[in-house]
Amino acid sequence: MIKTAKSVRNLINEFRKLPGIGEKTAQRLTFHVLKTDRSDIERLARALIEVKDRVRYCSTCFNITEADPCEICTDAGRNRTMLCVVEEPGDLLAIERTNEYKGLYHVLMGSLSPLDGIGPQQLKIKELLERLRSNEVTEIIMATNPTVEGEATALYIARLLKPFNLKITRIAHGIPVGGDLELADQSTMARAMEGRKEM
Amino acid sequence: MIKTAKSVRNLINEFRKLPGIGEKTAQRLTFHVLKTDRSDIERLARALIEVKDRVRYCSTCFNITEADPCEICTDAGRNRTMLCVVEEPGDLLAIERTNEYKGLYHVLMGSLSPLDGIGPQQLKIKELLERLRSNEVTEIIMATNPTVEGEATALYIARLLKPFNLKITRIAHGIPVGGDLELADQSTMARAMEGRKEM
Repeated sequence: MIKTAKSVRNLINEFRKLPGIGEKTAQRLTFHVLKTDRSDIERLARALIEVKDRVRYCSTCFNITEADPCEICTDAGRNRTMLCVVEEPGDLLAIERTNEYKGLYHVLMGSLSPLDGIGPQQLKIKELLERLRSNEVTEIIMATNPTVEGEATALYIARLLKPFNLKITRIAHGIPVGGDLELADQSTMARAMEGRKEM
Repeated sequence: MIKTAKSVRNLINEFRKLPGIGEKTAQRLTFHVLKTDRSDIERLARALIEVKDRVRYCSTCFNITEADPCEICTDAGRNRTMLCVVEEPGDLLAIERTNEYKGLYHVLMGSLSPLDGIGPQQLKIKELLERLRSNEVTEIIMATNPTVEGEATALYIARLLKPFNLKITRIAHGIPVGGDLELADQSTMARAMEGRKEM
């Protein structure tokens, strides 16, 4: 136990609960807080509470939002015939950042992972099927992660959607832009070769 | 600008102001907050404010503390003849963690860095001299960082303390325990050779 003020120890412990933050980073952050103006720290504390009070999940696509349905679902300018299926709200943000995709989304809230007790019932798959029954979607883009769980989830859903007679696509895998061939792992390299296109 | 809830964007921005936290880490932390129970997030928010309300600097040694003077300065079990001079309260904690040093401390609150406008007046050097006038210190351990600024600060203070007729020591530099000789930089290696001891 480090001999320091109780409230300092307490803040270090709270920081440590955040993902990817160990003892040393927690200490560094705490010393930063000690040096920073009270008003700045109040702003951070308020932002934390506000997010918990105001943010919920969109009842249509399960994106994070303050209004329900979310801004994307209610945006008249978006293409309602395309639905991009992602695992987490963070994945949706990553796609939005490209400014390329103008369709709608569906967030599964995870991926199939039987060992962790996550089966189809734990994901928003039932809600996805419900949406397809009632609206004008013609293409589903499976944008789950290129992991074992993400691939299994994409395959599972693709099979489930067969009866709907939709175009179902999977995002491309390959060498990252700006990446180095030499550093690519075997399976990424294999996917890049397999997915080659005529120039 | 990412299309996401305003309070989410706001929290990402607040996290980004913390040292060593970029856009991606800020997003990851924000999604963690979204998934975590409100009570846990309240605890973090409260810990942030409490630290600002309760913690001050010890008027004797400038360690961070809730009581003034601090727990170390008032600890009757500590050796009052030794004074360890460090740059920041975090350095003091790093030394305390070893459980080896039982003397007192003096935190300078920085190191000499003329380019950043930090001269002797900006550090707690006057206060150090004041302490030496009135108490029983016989050894000063200079534990400033092994950087250009830290070394300059140690030398400056050592020269200033000449008239006090104290034993002044500098912490040892060398190969870190568990470190690899092959990976040691040139100046660390040179210091390790220079500081060699008979076995």
